[in-house]
Amino acid sequence: MSQIRQDPTTKEWVIIARERSKRPSDFVHAKARPEIPSFLSSCPFCAGNEAMAVPETLSYRDEKTQRWRVRAFANKFPALTPQGDTTRSEEKGFFLGMNSVGVHEVIVETPVHNKALALMEDTEVMDVLRAYQERYKALSRLPFVKLIIIFKNYGLAAGTSLEHPHSQLIAVPVVPKHIRMRHEVAVRYYDDTGRCLYSDLAVRELEAGERIVTETERFVVFHPFASHEPFETWILPKMQQACFCDVSAEELKELAYVLRITLLKLYRGLNNPDFNYVIDSALTGEESNEYYLWHLRIIPRLTEAAGFEIGSGISITTALPEETAQFMHDVQVD
Amino acid sequence: MSQIRQDPTTKEWVIIARERSKRPSDFVHAKARPEIPSFLSSCPFCAGNEAMAVPETLSYRDEKTQRWRVRAFANKFPALTPQGDTTRSEEKGFFLGMNSVGVHEVIVETPVHNKALALMEDTEVMDVLRAYQERYKALSRLPFVKLIIIFKNYGLAAGTSLEHPHSQLIAVPVVPKHIRMRHEVAVRYYDDTGRCLYSDLAVRELEAGERIVTETERFVVFHPFASHEPFETWILPKMQQACFCDVSAEELKELAYVLRITLLKLYRGLNNPDFNYVIDSALTGEESNEYYLWHLRIIPRLTEAAGFEIGSGISITTALPEETAQFMHDVQVD
Repeated sequence: MSQIRQDPTTKEWVIIARERSKRPSDFVHAKARPEIPSFLSSCPFCAGNEAMAVPETLSYRDEKTQRWRVRAFANKFPALTPQGDTTRSEEKGFFLGMNSVGVHEVIVETPVHNKALALMEDTEVMDVLRAYQERYKALSRLPFVKLIIIFKNYGLAAGTSLEHPHSQLIAVPVVPKHIRMRHEVAVRYYDDTGRCLYSDLAVRELEAGERIVTETERFVVFHPFASHEPFETWILPKMQQACFCDVSAEELKELAYVLRITLLKLYRGLNNPDFNYVIDSALTGEESNEYYLWHLRIIPRLTEAAGFEIGSGISITTALPEETAQFMHDVQVD
Repeated sequence: MSQIRQDPTTKEWVIIARERSKRPSDFVHAKARPEIPSFLSSCPFCAGNEAMAVPETLSYRDEKTQRWRVRAFANKFPALTPQGDTTRSEEKGFFLGMNSVGVHEVIVETPVHNKALALMEDTEVMDVLRAYQERYKALSRLPFVKLIIIFKNYGLAAGTSLEHPHSQLIAVPVVPKHIRMRHEVAVRYYDDTGRCLYSDLAVRELEAGERIVTETERFVVFHPFASHEPFETWILPKMQQACFCDVSAEELKELAYVLRITLLKLYRGLNNPDFNYVIDSALTGEESNEYYLWHLRIIPRLTEAAGFEIGSGISITTALPEETAQFMHDVQVD
């Protein structure tokens, strides 16, 4: 029989529809991807085309050649701009709005147009994560910033048309309802138990064992019990750390390895699917709280939300996380 | 400058990105749609193929010919099944689940394979709405049902592969977090003001005037101030009515006209776009509450949610609802 499961981190329900269920291998991307060149003269992210982009906010360069490996700069078409008044204005005493004050940056992950993150070396992934953290720390010092979302859109179905490997940071001047809701659940759990919900989640998932993709000393990778999407994948630290800004260099190195092999498993197992990932971290000013744990969520874009999901907020998923995790666990990466 | 706006019904923020903004006409579906036949021998919803579907739960038939105009039956691959125990079970004291008890029905809107709802007569749309209401009332009497979502998926981008015009009802045994959140906002507003948030919203939108698509005696159609998606469209009754089940025959007739011309404006204005719509109504057992108002939301599927939306719950929209509403207002339908 099908099951309804509750996401312990949001209290949202998910329907695992076994009557409609598919085998993990049914989600393998069927079509061949078009060949992507290693350089594109029209791409503002390619090495050699730096003049097409705005001035950089960060770059890591080889000492000898001075060639860059990773670069960051403001998004040319930003959703937010880093100036203006953040006072809420009320229109006719009912409609609440404010200036869209914030920061929107791009992190170019490699000078090479066609080098997917999943196929990089650990040291290259480490550069990308280091850049995330450095820009995260810089933006979190801006007085108007309440939350910073680090994310990556990979492929058309994931909402990007830019092929060149890149990630983005958006710093917003409000605490979104969506985040408040997650924090409320975690605070309540902390108040009830004196423990961090996410740390307990890591322990419980490891105890259950059946949804684990891989595990290292400091991280666990799993498909969550109440997976909202087929192959939704979490990377969760085992240590208490509310903010991604507090990950040490040593830990970041291990994370680079874990992220790389997780993405490589997806790349090989599902034939290079489109995906988003997002690093969910503490609110600014709450970096040392004991109720939250930063984590990285990967959402392969394999299905479309439809009217029921839009209306109810309940996902219907046609894959069993126990089966998809086993499938991913078995994909060879070494 | 861009603006951040708050949805008064959910307290969610939306970024209206003017720097990236597009004109309403940029959203017109560019490609020609493939020709769809009026009958398909493999379609279980076509007249003549009734034996391929499960037994019906409703049909409206012509008195003389006994041919059906609208039919309902259980979904052949249901997300939920109408039997079993609804007790929550706890796995290892942490993971909460239950049997997926519920009802999942299909309403076939016409015997003709290629007759889009937007192109029907008012009387035909009226039949569809009457069927929604009749099945809604029947399902709401089942003891395990807490919420009924009526929805329509139109086109591949909206999550359906079935061309034959149809809608669906799903009755669930839990109150989703997503719905609780909306109700909490409405209850708080009611407690503060003694009025229904949604009724006030109708009044305020009519006062503002700049986002109105059309208006009749009993309904207002508008693009909301904090539109989550380009061309998101609401049909809101002007009378206090928490539950869709309480719409009278006279009101339903007017709604049929309003829904038809709203869909026809979309069909003509955006060249037959994919869309979802959903009727959001009171929880069962709360049908007479004074804080909520049922309403119909139409979401054309013109953009893809990306990593930022997934991580923050904040939508970035590239269309200004004032401009899209004016565009739709001007589309001729008579």
